[in-house]
Amino acid sequence: MSEGKQGTSLYFIVKEKLLALIKSGTYKIGDQLPTELELCQEYDVSRTTIRLALQQLEFEGFIQKVQGKGTFVSKPRIRETITRTIRTFVEQMKDLGLSYQSQVLELILIPADYSLAETLHIEENDPVVKLVRVRNADAEPLQYVTSYLPWRVAPGLVNDDISGSLFDLLRTKYKVNICRSVESIEPILITEHISQYLEVPVGSPAFSVESLTYSDEGQPIEFSCGIVRGDRFKFTMERFENK
Amino acid sequence: MSEGKQGTSLYFIVKEKLLALIKSGTYKIGDQLPTELELCQEYDVSRTTIRLALQQLEFEGFIQKVQGKGTFVSKPRIRETITRTIRTFVEQMKDLGLSYQSQVLELILIPADYSLAETLHIEENDPVVKLVRVRNADAEPLQYVTSYLPWRVAPGLVNDDISGSLFDLLRTKYKVNICRSVESIEPILITEHISQYLEVPVGSPAFSVESLTYSDEGQPIEFSCGIVRGDRFKFTMERFENK
Repeated sequence: MSEGKQGTSLYFIVKEKLLALIKSGTYKIGDQLPTELELCQEYDVSRTTIRLALQQLEFEGFIQKVQGKGTFVSKPRIRETITRTIRTFVEQMKDLGLSYQSQVLELILIPADYSLAETLHIEENDPVVKLVRVRNADAEPLQYVTSYLPWRVAPGLVNDDISGSLFDLLRTKYKVNICRSVESIEPILITEHISQYLEVPVGSPAFSVESLTYSDEGQPIEFSCGIVRGDRFKFTMERFENK
Repeated sequence: MSEGKQGTSLYFIVKEKLLALIKSGTYKIGDQLPTELELCQEYDVSRTTIRLALQQLEFEGFIQKVQGKGTFVSKPRIRETITRTIRTFVEQMKDLGLSYQSQVLELILIPADYSLAETLHIEENDPVVKLVRVRNADAEPLQYVTSYLPWRVAPGLVNDDISGSLFDLLRTKYKVNICRSVESIEPILITEHISQYLEVPVGSPAFSVESLTYSDEGQPIEFSCGIVRGDRFKFTMERFENK
């Protein structure tokens, strides 16, 4: 294979060719890709180039390396459709026919620091429930979410079972009227710490989703920061011409 | 500084501390951060740790290193609000009071391959306009966008001036009735090729935004793949409780 045009890296060209074969269904979900050596010969490039191409495809979630077995085409990503209505993670997984489990890593009371107090409209040092969870679907870890709730929104939450939907618990047990949520999405890299919980390589691309949810009285009831696996999720939306 | 608790990396703790100082306004936009050496002493950690923390902050768009000058707090990101109505990039920049310039890198006719033909509802080898642009706001490159349009949607487009809004041109000159667009957002890493155009480091996190736009007759009129700088953009949205 000769030089890439316009300075395009060789590995990028190989990656795009392999991706086209995956997208066209030549390589199907679960299929094993040829070995690195076979790919070297097929595309007439170095092993380093093939490795870079495969690494990029793995980062982007199209393939997965299985230690000692080879490289396989991954399951497609979960599409989270952005709608105007609040849908809990549990509801979304149910829609997709996936079973939901949440693993609570931390559930403690902390004093609000300056930034949390500002966000939650409370005083500095007011008690805040900090909840850290890994959300799984079909036993696969998908999201690492840290939630902060003013203690008075749900006193007793630190002793509750939060393996299901937090919002359902707030609605039923604490009679909270959830009204509106403002979310923002940014791309980030998976850190060492998060990598352990989400079982993805350090440095792979992911979403950071910050969400602030308000009650019908305009009181912030939950601020959450979620790390969402980029290899398993994509956000989709539909827009219309304004006429 | 002692060991991080729960296996949290030291650099991550330092990064979070610096980020808190930026968010609280202790370090303001444009402010210069202390030198690496000063930060080593302040946080009692190694230079490697400080470098990792700064690298992470730079990747996430909070700070920017200026060769030979130091490290500075960056401008805040552009928020793209996800709405139900189609808004062109030019309109969005205008709303933000930013001037828009688009640099056309490529504007050619190509034959549709299998995948493009499927996407655009045309036959394989039908002519397709390929348009590659870098979109700038206030002379800063923000998005690298590749668009594909069936040639018959806008015959003559290859000879047009597309430095403004493509959609405006389609509406006015080619009488296209733009109706609906379906978009998906994924997190990716900036490749070497894109890095040159968007002036961000290779490997920094970014959004990949794929968009398929339809006419009022349900005919695909444009398929576009955009690479959006993660350090300068965030997507935001508002959701409401369905009652």
